[in-house]
Amino acid sequence: MAEKIVVALGGNALQSGKSEATAEAQLAVVKETCERIADLSEKGYEVAVVHGNGPQVGRILLASETAKDVTPAMPFDVCGAMSQGYIGYHLQQALRFALAKRGKDIPVVTLLTQMVVDQKDPAFQNPTKPIGPFYSEAEAKELAETKGYSMKEDAGRGWRRVVPSPIPTRIVELDSVKKLWDSTIVITCGGGGIPVLETENGDLEGTAAVIDKDFAAELLAENVEADALMILTEVEKVAINFNKLNQENLGHMTYAEAEKHCADGQFAPGSMLPKVQAAMKFVKANPDKKAIITSLAKAIDALEGKTGTVITFA
Amino acid sequence: MAEKIVVALGGNALQSGKSEATAEAQLAVVKETCERIADLSEKGYEVAVVHGNGPQVGRILLASETAKDVTPAMPFDVCGAMSQGYIGYHLQQALRFALAKRGKDIPVVTLLTQMVVDQKDPAFQNPTKPIGPFYSEAEAKELAETKGYSMKEDAGRGWRRVVPSPIPTRIVELDSVKKLWDSTIVITCGGGGIPVLETENGDLEGTAAVIDKDFAAELLAENVEADALMILTEVEKVAINFNKLNQENLGHMTYAEAEKHCADGQFAPGSMLPKVQAAMKFVKANPDKKAIITSLAKAIDALEGKTGTVITFA
Repeated sequence: MAEKIVVALGGNALQSGKSEATAEAQLAVVKETCERIADLSEKGYEVAVVHGNGPQVGRILLASETAKDVTPAMPFDVCGAMSQGYIGYHLQQALRFALAKRGKDIPVVTLLTQMVVDQKDPAFQNPTKPIGPFYSEAEAKELAETKGYSMKEDAGRGWRRVVPSPIPTRIVELDSVKKLWDSTIVITCGGGGIPVLETENGDLEGTAAVIDKDFAAELLAENVEADALMILTEVEKVAINFNKLNQENLGHMTYAEAEKHCADGQFAPGSMLPKVQAAMKFVKANPDKKAIITSLAKAIDALEGKTGTVITFA
Repeated sequence: MAEKIVVALGGNALQSGKSEATAEAQLAVVKETCERIADLSEKGYEVAVVHGNGPQVGRILLASETAKDVTPAMPFDVCGAMSQGYIGYHLQQALRFALAKRGKDIPVVTLLTQMVVDQKDPAFQNPTKPIGPFYSEAEAKELAETKGYSMKEDAGRGWRRVVPSPIPTRIVELDSVKKLWDSTIVITCGGGGIPVLETENGDLEGTAAVIDKDFAAELLAENVEADALMILTEVEKVAINFNKLNQENLGHMTYAEAEKHCADGQFAPGSMLPKVQAAMKFVKANPDKKAIITSLAKAIDALEGKTGTVITFA
């Protein structure tokens, strides 16, 4: 039986820097990324791909708000859906070609994915993720009053809208991911999924929120009973005492060790912390499985036990 | 065996008018549309859904071009991918709920879809579809020189970029549509599909083109061996002598009759003509199957032979 791997791609897998924010530059980076994912497939792993969308959805929202006097601005959930279209298109195009070059005729497809979040998630009481353009204080107050937005001052640079970052609870299109898994590489839960709330009558309703793609990938890995959750980022290994003289790169963490490092504040919120937390959540739910945090370039080596940070329950 | 139907949704299935160009207004119209599609499913038909994207991709491009000094403008193929995300999200959300209300727990999912077009298609020599904002003559000349765009003067309103509208030749993600068909309602080939050219080495490359969604639906119907291609539009029946005293609404056309009406200029280019041509293409390829052109409200009646315009080969 082939090992099933859910791969979560970080921002550096989609663009090379802020100066290269064009679609053309993204496609060039995505092509390189897809070579590495194709390598995983060639080695016999069955993979599904989850990707972030922070810079992309930010630019879609920015364009939409900038042009709002010319054409109606888009709600944030729709911006998320559009970012899945944008990024998924590039990934499925490049990955299919990278596989074909290796003589592998494997279908690749992006499924638009909605992700249920819980209105009772404490994140809704404390929105923290800034999105969209900067505003003056007066504009910010008007948006808060007229649209009910939560607005926060952002480090002296102006005011921005903030939205909650809840933990995802259910992948709406999971059936289709499962049905395609055996034959197809599925790109799903892009940007963490389009956040939706479940109403009393069972309908779904888009909501302005940002779902961490690592938690989305974790939920997917649990749901498809993956053998490994692989979170790809810029570094080969997770470190404690990061950027200090006594920095230590970790080859392995148990759940308890990871829990202690988190409590000690070893991992940066919004950066390494959610990755480690997602890894912990996966191995707690599946004590015989593993999570891996490493770089795209080291993915295969890490799966073969040669590098990366492996997180296991015990 | 359930009858397999490919449904092509026209613009009026997604928005109610130019004054209602917001995402919220689209969602309200999409909910009504999905009630009718759910009716088809409840009657036992197996459906796949193809939709247009003219107004939506136009607004995405307009926002992108308007904001281009703030954030890089998107290529037109990426705008198409984003429109699949936008429209597909609304359709899959609303259709799943409409089915659930009927006690039917049927998965609904949007597949991002690339559509191969042929560089040798004569449409590339004669681009006709205007896209994006209006420009002055000087701006138009500069765009033609610096970006290689084809620019045309548009009825005294200014200059616009024009792109080709080639006939689609291959649905890249067809495998996945077929694999999901038996269990799932698939939304695919949105906006006619994201137009891509096949390069010499087998790679795909996005191109600025507009694919008619009726021809995309036709190709899908051929590929999945559908029993019927159903093109839904604003009118209950196709008419000849349209809007004249001797207007005649047609209940049935053979291929030969349709061919004669086309030759007589009975159908408006860019409106009824491509619908009739797509219907003709389908029954020519599948002489024992039928195509139907009717309104969303009359879809079931038309399938039951009570109304609509049925096109058969003989």
